[in-house]
Amino acid sequence: MSRPTIKDVARHANVSLKTVSRVINGEASVRDDTRERVQRAIDELDYAPDQAARNLRGATSHALGLVYDNPNPYYVISVQNGVLAACRDQDFGLQIHPCDSNAPDLADELRELVAHARLAGLVLAPPMSERMELIRYLAEHGIRFVRIISAAEDPNDGYPCVYVDDRDAAYDITEHLIQLGHQRIGFLWGGAEHRSSPERFKGYEAALKDYGIPLDKKLVIPGDYSFDDGFRGARRLFALREPPTAIFGSNDEIAAGVLAAAKANGIDVPYELSIAGFEDSPFSRQSWPALTTAKQATEDIARHAALRLIAELKPAGSGVLHVNRGFSPQLVIRDSTARVRTTTP
Amino acid sequence: MSRPTIKDVARHANVSLKTVSRVINGEASVRDDTRERVQRAIDELDYAPDQAARNLRGATSHALGLVYDNPNPYYVISVQNGVLAACRDQDFGLQIHPCDSNAPDLADELRELVAHARLAGLVLAPPMSERMELIRYLAEHGIRFVRIISAAEDPNDGYPCVYVDDRDAAYDITEHLIQLGHQRIGFLWGGAEHRSSPERFKGYEAALKDYGIPLDKKLVIPGDYSFDDGFRGARRLFALREPPTAIFGSNDEIAAGVLAAAKANGIDVPYELSIAGFEDSPFSRQSWPALTTAKQATEDIARHAALRLIAELKPAGSGVLHVNRGFSPQLVIRDSTARVRTTTP
Repeated sequence: MSRPTIKDVARHANVSLKTVSRVINGEASVRDDTRERVQRAIDELDYAPDQAARNLRGATSHALGLVYDNPNPYYVISVQNGVLAACRDQDFGLQIHPCDSNAPDLADELRELVAHARLAGLVLAPPMSERMELIRYLAEHGIRFVRIISAAEDPNDGYPCVYVDDRDAAYDITEHLIQLGHQRIGFLWGGAEHRSSPERFKGYEAALKDYGIPLDKKLVIPGDYSFDDGFRGARRLFALREPPTAIFGSNDEIAAGVLAAAKANGIDVPYELSIAGFEDSPFSRQSWPALTTAKQATEDIARHAALRLIAELKPAGSGVLHVNRGFSPQLVIRDSTARVRTTTP
Repeated sequence: MSRPTIKDVARHANVSLKTVSRVINGEASVRDDTRERVQRAIDELDYAPDQAARNLRGATSHALGLVYDNPNPYYVISVQNGVLAACRDQDFGLQIHPCDSNAPDLADELRELVAHARLAGLVLAPPMSERMELIRYLAEHGIRFVRIISAAEDPNDGYPCVYVDDRDAAYDITEHLIQLGHQRIGFLWGGAEHRSSPERFKGYEAALKDYGIPLDKKLVIPGDYSFDDGFRGARRLFALREPPTAIFGSNDEIAAGVLAAAKANGIDVPYELSIAGFEDSPFSRQSWPALTTAKQATEDIARHAALRLIAELKPAGSGVLHVNRGFSPQLVIRDSTARVRTTTP
């Protein structure tokens, strides 16, 4: 495999290596006719600037790292695809770095990752993105990053982010269930280390309060963003003396677990039990019945996060995003929620 | 952020830059006591060799690329995790590259990816791994790769691979259905551009033949490895004058689509219809009833593929795999298959 080198380009265009390098790095100090001659030589020779070499020359790297810790494959693939879309658009590569968010040396792990693979910056998914001590550590060590976080508004803490208003969407789901006549609505938490979990709980709590329904703590079950915890949590709710007539699972995986538990117990969904999830994963459309949920534009959110990071890396005014942006998941009503049954047992 | 440089290490160990470089690159020409002195300096200064710089110096890159085109998130995440496990073990980074396997300029796209990001080599998932013209093109252009392919035995074509015996596992699934008394067994194809699809069909065909059951072409439906095609294919089979009593979906997503179609049509699974999938995805354990399937050790297969590639990149005898290895998915019997109903309609 004999690829043309930067020397071939310089010889072909009859300029110095330094001039070719300046053109490749987009420096302004090159005359227009020289720039055109070099560009023509690059095109004619089909020269591809080597990225690793360019990293050293220009002291800028052209790969981002994506850091996540999430058990849900649909979520992870959506985040990857969104970040990749931005990377391809802006000519960056993407290294993936799933990690254990509970690892005691996570901060060092990420610092070494950036140094070792010479990454230009990191896209941090929850829950890493929501740990302020980690965020401050990375910033202190000169590591560029963007955070995908759960928040009702821009935190304005000086660190770049995109934020998702989980609270508002959870309010909408709970309100939908209340408007169907439900008064006893179970709530299954997601992983408490994700800020989205308390945010979704706050939305549930606020809707109950606004409609004058007292919060019954027996109806609120801790757990993780997983199918198994949905299954287990639902079983606990079914065993109550007064079981709920509706269950709000903090994501679609949890809701799918509730659905399986209902089927295992011979409970008819939605006529004996309404179930709602959160996320609008393909899973929520494929279950039977299909799940009422909140549509979270994960891929678009992740794409904006990566563009936000790239904006930090590039000079101002280069046409990419320089502000934190917020996203609001939207209620999607499907077949798993229905009016409360009127017969009493 | 002031990180120690290779110069600091050289000064600290009182050796030349070249010696430090030799130690970092694991060259044999360094005396043991010198090597120890340099290593001690590296440890004391907490020096992390910069990978991009090392790439240039050693003319070897330390990131692999993973190339795939698959609609199934569970499969993709398993492949990524397997390749990452090998990369971490062998100190490589991983760039991901989902692509469109039907893109007319795919070969150029992959060549540019490797050149641009200076990747050490590519792990190719199906169907890219099974296109011989693409494989030959990459080899001719000096690109190192390993293939994950579907084959009953080592193709012995001179290109490194790991191979999965889909045919044998599909035979086992079909035999299981036959032994439950089923004679009319529907077969839903996966994407024809994946070699696993005809391999799985051959297994189905061979089992029918061995048990003296004639192949009824009306029971064989083309499609893709997707939930939607499972749903549609099942609907077509239900509409037959003599519908099947069992359906073998070529993967778990297809089987899940069949399950949803059965529920939509009020067909009781497994007592009126047996359903089997392939892959043992989490989905297959979470559906209701849980799916009979073939357990494919996707993560382990992908890990071995990456180790096989790294073996190609390293000198012989460096403790990693230098032979093509085969994998056989295993039958897993769950609740979606049962003895054929004895009542006639």
